[in-house]
Amino acid sequence: MDIDKERLTHHISRQFNAELEDLRNRVLTMGGLVEQQITDAVRALVEGNTELAEAVIPRDHQVNALEVAIDEECTHVIARRQPAASDLRLIIAVIKTITDLERMGDEAERIARMAIHLASLERPRSQYLEIQNLGDHVRQLTHDALDAFARMDAEAAAHVAQRDTKVDLEYEGIIRQSVTHMMEDPRSIARILDVMWSARALERIGDHARNICEYVIYLVKGKDVRHTSLEQLEKTARGE
Amino acid sequence: MDIDKERLTHHISRQFNAELEDLRNRVLTMGGLVEQQITDAVRALVEGNTELAEAVIPRDHQVNALEVAIDEECTHVIARRQPAASDLRLIIAVIKTITDLERMGDEAERIARMAIHLASLERPRSQYLEIQNLGDHVRQLTHDALDAFARMDAEAAAHVAQRDTKVDLEYEGIIRQSVTHMMEDPRSIARILDVMWSARALERIGDHARNICEYVIYLVKGKDVRHTSLEQLEKTARGE
Repeated sequence: MDIDKERLTHHISRQFNAELEDLRNRVLTMGGLVEQQITDAVRALVEGNTELAEAVIPRDHQVNALEVAIDEECTHVIARRQPAASDLRLIIAVIKTITDLERMGDEAERIARMAIHLASLERPRSQYLEIQNLGDHVRQLTHDALDAFARMDAEAAAHVAQRDTKVDLEYEGIIRQSVTHMMEDPRSIARILDVMWSARALERIGDHARNICEYVIYLVKGKDVRHTSLEQLEKTARGE
Repeated sequence: MDIDKERLTHHISRQFNAELEDLRNRVLTMGGLVEQQITDAVRALVEGNTELAEAVIPRDHQVNALEVAIDEECTHVIARRQPAASDLRLIIAVIKTITDLERMGDEAERIARMAIHLASLERPRSQYLEIQNLGDHVRQLTHDALDAFARMDAEAAAHVAQRDTKVDLEYEGIIRQSVTHMMEDPRSIARILDVMWSARALERIGDHARNICEYVIYLVKGKDVRHTSLEQLEKTARGE
């Protein structure tokens, strides 16, 4: 290869790397926005803060716009760079991750709508403590999944994915408790249903965070770990 | 171009077309399986047929396996063929479509689990007629979305997407009615909740079918119509 060509190749690959880096950063920006939406939606519900809930709803458009823009950038990068192997895996992982992030944003919006309805009703003595706890755990799970994505850390991703099991158990506890409350006080059924839908939305956000972890493992290890057991997922992440 | 090279190019492009055709066919196979899962899960619930419900649950593994296999094929085709423009759009649309199909399969599995629980309980006089109707509409929506995908028909896809609005209204009707029933008869709360979760699962399947329609429009028109109004979606599909 002559020097000019080598320089050109070097230049192209530097530009390509910058593009991939940009894609990753945009995913993290989108992830940060989704995290904020979850935090605000849960806080609005717990505090009965209608104003905060009403701020969450239109902000979902920003999440959607980021999904469309990043998706488009991915298609352009594939068409222009014709990446192979690990670079292609990164782009595919980005396309999948932003789909999950967008749906997490939808769930946050749902919680905000529930928060507005709940704010107009009598508040229970528990002050929605259980939703606060579930919300904290799910938000942290989302944060750590995105952190594993940012650092391309398959082992961290496997640990985060495992924690989703705890979220599922916590969610089931809320559902059981809610059914009991409904039977004890049928007048509160409509209110408790909104709490249950919110808990379900949070549980779904946890599932999406787990999906992101699985993409990170796929990305780093080149092995699809979806629909496998948590043990298999751990093993793959450790490179066994 | 000399004849040998032309032949070779022609040969490669024929092989490439066969690969794309194969991808499309595999999506339709997966879609057919998911349709069957929805049909069986709803029938199991409505008829209180535990055996049928128990057949649905393990079959979800087949849906998952198809997702993983098609995903892998997509990555290989991109890496090997380095497709541009419309071919790349087709592959991206396939990657997105199978994600939605997999989640539709998950919802069908959820309905089957609910069916098993409901089969052990007293049956209401309504015989779950409302779930039957919603189930029929959602299954038809799924079928027509896949049909639009098979024929790459953007206008048909836009019509199908619009019908999802009716499904949403039907779902909301079931939820309202369920709340009334719960308040009238608190002992039936647990049972009615399962009906509500099933209705919600069907509503989600409708959303996924709508997503697939949006990918078809993106694929045919090269324009992302997600998060736009139904009118905009119609216009884009008509090429305006």
